[in-house]
Amino acid sequence: MKRIDSAKNEQVKNWKKLHTKKGRQKLERFLIEGDHLVKEALASNVRVETLLFTEKHKSVARNDVQGVLVSDSVMKELTVTENPQGVVAICEPPPSPPVETLAGGYVLLDRLQDPGNVGTIIRTALAAGMSGVVLGSGSVDLFNGKVVRATQGALFHLPVFQGNLKEWILRFQEQDIPLYGTALHDAEPYTIVSRQNSFALVLGNEGEGVDPVLLRQTNQNICIPQNYKTESLNVAVAAGILMYALKK
Amino acid sequence: MKRIDSAKNEQVKNWKKLHTKKGRQKLERFLIEGDHLVKEALASNVRVETLLFTEKHKSVARNDVQGVLVSDSVMKELTVTENPQGVVAICEPPPSPPVETLAGGYVLLDRLQDPGNVGTIIRTALAAGMSGVVLGSGSVDLFNGKVVRATQGALFHLPVFQGNLKEWILRFQEQDIPLYGTALHDAEPYTIVSRQNSFALVLGNEGEGVDPVLLRQTNQNICIPQNYKTESLNVAVAAGILMYALKK
Repeated sequence: MKRIDSAKNEQVKNWKKLHTKKGRQKLERFLIEGDHLVKEALASNVRVETLLFTEKHKSVARNDVQGVLVSDSVMKELTVTENPQGVVAICEPPPSPPVETLAGGYVLLDRLQDPGNVGTIIRTALAAGMSGVVLGSGSVDLFNGKVVRATQGALFHLPVFQGNLKEWILRFQEQDIPLYGTALHDAEPYTIVSRQNSFALVLGNEGEGVDPVLLRQTNQNICIPQNYKTESLNVAVAAGILMYALKK
Repeated sequence: MKRIDSAKNEQVKNWKKLHTKKGRQKLERFLIEGDHLVKEALASNVRVETLLFTEKHKSVARNDVQGVLVSDSVMKELTVTENPQGVVAICEPPPSPPVETLAGGYVLLDRLQDPGNVGTIIRTALAAGMSGVVLGSGSVDLFNGKVVRATQGALFHLPVFQGNLKEWILRFQEQDIPLYGTALHDAEPYTIVSRQNSFALVLGNEGEGVDPVLLRQTNQNICIPQNYKTESLNVAVAAGILMYALKK
């Protein structure tokens, strides 16, 4: 079994680059840390290229994946959580799933910036039985470590597309799938919409909401009635309320 | 107007203690930062003892609140967000609201640890028209800076009680208010419960859920059906789904 002890090792320096979007795009890999996420990745279709583990976590080694035993200092160098669990995996981003036929519920995210929100929405979408999430251009990077952690592994089990939302909206329209935008004004309470199997729900940027250009392309814009003139709900909470209210 | 330029000033050192629970309890004050939160506090019944602001933010000064002009270095010392907005307020914790008569919807939080979750639930509870939140013993401190920020000011407009949940549950039972626990097992889908005006909803610790002892005291335990064997939903998202599904 390969073994790396020095945090100055060239390979370690390379892996460390996976903590930046630029590094992930250049190397076409992403890095996940912790037992739970690694287990979820191994149980999915995502290809795990390399497993890194400390002496104490040697038991995660597998015959079918390249394993590297690393020192605690190397592990520390590669992880960002406060209590790293001694296990890291280097993964290949899954190929974008085919999109000829869209069926079921989808969530479209317009320029979401907070990695915790994006990750939590992916996690909730899987639980709510949605068919996929479309992460619109201008959103935080899907393979950002905080996004991946907030999904709790859900991104290994749910198709997540990335692309231009205007094009995606056309795709839904071509297939007669109703589109619901979310807005604070000029919108009907979500309770007027009945539960359905196939639909697309558009959620927007934490500060600005959904781009008005997109809101003009939807079938219906909906809101969540609020009792007090708050700053609106957190977008991940709003997404959860709407997915669970709309999905049949 | 009073002016403090040195971060080593004794008063500044004292205010800095408000970043810890121990300091907040000793001084019986809490500290909030940023335009939005300060504005929400000033518009509420919470007593703002002192307003601190930098030269650039002098316009927030008011006749009815003690104002202190501080240097950028003092402001930096007192704030924890990445881009402090130049305004800080020292506030008195509001007195616990009277509890003789409970009416409306309440959320009870059993040992919640994540400040973002607690703050987001308070924010959602206000939007959903609930009457109050009860933060059970063993939960994160209500006046923790991250909790306050995540409420987006909602804690200035919604009664938040703190105490022992077993006692609180008795209080709801005495007043014939139905109690719903949340659990992953031995629980019915929440959709069997019809919307109502008065009820109490118990949510639990991020890892362990609601204490089984409390679950035995409820009228009914409910769950949110999930399509995939996930690690369960994020508790703030679950709270949002349930409040909006149960509140009439």
